[in-house]
Amino acid sequence: MTNSLHTIGILGGGQLGMMLAEAALPLGYRCVFLEDADNPPAALYGQVFKTHELDAFISASDVFTLEFENTPVDTARKLGELTDKGGLFPPARALEVAQDRLNEKTLFNQLDIATVPFMAVHTLDDIKTAADTLGLPLVLKTSRGGYDGKGQFVLKSVDTISDAWATLGDATKSAPLIAEGFINFSREVSIIAVRSKAGEIRYYPLVENVHTSGILAKTTAPAADTEHLTAQAQSNIKKLLEHLDYVGVMALELFVTDDGVLANEIAPRVHNSGHWSIEGAHCSQFENHIRTVAGLPLGDTAVSHPSVMLNVIGKYPNSADVLAIDGVHYHHYHKSERDGRKIAHITVMTGDERQADAVAKAESLLVNC
Amino acid sequence: MTNSLHTIGILGGGQLGMMLAEAALPLGYRCVFLEDADNPPAALYGQVFKTHELDAFISASDVFTLEFENTPVDTARKLGELTDKGGLFPPARALEVAQDRLNEKTLFNQLDIATVPFMAVHTLDDIKTAADTLGLPLVLKTSRGGYDGKGQFVLKSVDTISDAWATLGDATKSAPLIAEGFINFSREVSIIAVRSKAGEIRYYPLVENVHTSGILAKTTAPAADTEHLTAQAQSNIKKLLEHLDYVGVMALELFVTDDGVLANEIAPRVHNSGHWSIEGAHCSQFENHIRTVAGLPLGDTAVSHPSVMLNVIGKYPNSADVLAIDGVHYHHYHKSERDGRKIAHITVMTGDERQADAVAKAESLLVNC
Repeated sequence: MTNSLHTIGILGGGQLGMMLAEAALPLGYRCVFLEDADNPPAALYGQVFKTHELDAFISASDVFTLEFENTPVDTARKLGELTDKGGLFPPARALEVAQDRLNEKTLFNQLDIATVPFMAVHTLDDIKTAADTLGLPLVLKTSRGGYDGKGQFVLKSVDTISDAWATLGDATKSAPLIAEGFINFSREVSIIAVRSKAGEIRYYPLVENVHTSGILAKTTAPAADTEHLTAQAQSNIKKLLEHLDYVGVMALELFVTDDGVLANEIAPRVHNSGHWSIEGAHCSQFENHIRTVAGLPLGDTAVSHPSVMLNVIGKYPNSADVLAIDGVHYHHYHKSERDGRKIAHITVMTGDERQADAVAKAESLLVNC
Repeated sequence: MTNSLHTIGILGGGQLGMMLAEAALPLGYRCVFLEDADNPPAALYGQVFKTHELDAFISASDVFTLEFENTPVDTARKLGELTDKGGLFPPARALEVAQDRLNEKTLFNQLDIATVPFMAVHTLDDIKTAADTLGLPLVLKTSRGGYDGKGQFVLKSVDTISDAWATLGDATKSAPLIAEGFINFSREVSIIAVRSKAGEIRYYPLVENVHTSGILAKTTAPAADTEHLTAQAQSNIKKLLEHLDYVGVMALELFVTDDGVLANEIAPRVHNSGHWSIEGAHCSQFENHIRTVAGLPLGDTAVSHPSVMLNVIGKYPNSADVLAIDGVHYHHYHKSERDGRKIAHITVMTGDERQADAVAKAESLLVNC
């Protein structure tokens, strides 16, 4: 396929699609995107088709991939089955799993991947049962939809069960809620891996993530003191990649406890916690994803520069101030400012003892909102 | 200007313009290009205007720069003087110098920058005089036009003076030829530096260049055993940058002799011998050039990964074979194959003792023609 591949059709046209294109173009490919938002970041790197132009998007593409995990599974399945195209990577099945938290955690447990204890919630009474069984506090989430902390309710007292139901009950008309037991975890980490069509798997190092208001704010790569967790994390994601016959980059979010890691969720795509790899790894998550989609050999996932990635949320800093810090790489997404929106990221990698100061300086310039 | 700058207008739309855009977009800028060739590489990264659409190109741009040194000086001067725009960087005067080998070397000598001995040639008789004065072999070049080894005649014997005149004499109708004395040099190196609007200068390390048939084939960064040449090379390019009140990236090609370096020519733009810096330096020549044009602080020019850059000339290798080599970065220019044409480059940087093997393997895949 490599030789006849000219254009990669990407489902979604946000910053992830943009950064996939940044990696694809130097490898000799063009990208087109399926995206309904106006002026998406990816529009700077290739033609954007709207959903009602799906046929034209298909015609323009030789093979398909995705950057938006809420792509309708039916669309994904259709693209994957087009016999005159190169396929969809990752497969639609991975989307289906990732789009439903209940199915996702059920699959984790089927594959002997440890998670927080959880239960399905169909009714208000189920919340009471969950509170009794799993204890308080209890985290209630819609099993479908919701991201960056939306669609959640933290139940701290049985007195607020009716509030929880008022907030999330409507969602049960389409799919049950998931109730998750509260676990004392010390840190959030994630692992990103890439699997080729031939089944080869390479792993990026575990990274540590800090969220603010449910939105990723900071990733440190590699995560400190995780040597004892690496084998378990790699084993977990390997099981998922192989079970799903996955091709491409996958991220797995994990909680660190005294007993090891608990799997939280997968992202069946390149992931915000891997943005550091553009400059910090020999081959970035974006390039490795494109390589797999194009049937090319995998690139080296080793860290070349220990890095800290800071998300720019809601409001842009003065870029001259950011770039005055040596060792900083700035990635502006060409999006308008809006509270809670990821609009850029900054990767700090001085390569020496100035790193902590440089990170602090960069953080001081952010007015994330 | 930083805050009101949205779009950078680039004179030229080849691979250098393409790689400038690759650096500009993540900093939050858009690029447009003035380029008459069909389907130029830069078209993937922004709108391309033809020369007859100059007014529209101007309207679309907030500030100007260039990637093509044969841009007409009149056009450059006009753009630099537009009072409602941010200026042209580098200044038109730098183009004027670079476009005329005789003026260029004359300026070098005025600034006490050593060159090979040279003379102007207006007539056939002047060639005889040059042969007498400078000795044989003698290199005759058109003083204007010509690149990648075109427009040259190496005079090895006085018997072929009439052949030389037959080949190059016509060019004297517009400008004299330049006759250069033959110098035994051991190596060709180049230095790239960047100067900000505030006059700050940063230097990339000296790199070693190998040409094949007059076309750059290989750059090793940093060049080995050049510690004793660095001060002279930096002093040379600093004189030029300051004399021209230059803003942006400049390259200076140098011959290494037993007595130090001799300046050959400048490129008033980003340069092929700096492509390694995309992955091999903390801040690439492309990003630093964009930073200066946008009035942003300079980035770190230090080497992060010793690199070897190989040009792909005429014919593409199998990209799967190239990418199977760990430590390789591939940059495909989306150009059609043609003998003698630079269509891609490969940067090899394994970071360890595998480097020589990886370079040899990459070279073995190239069928440059």
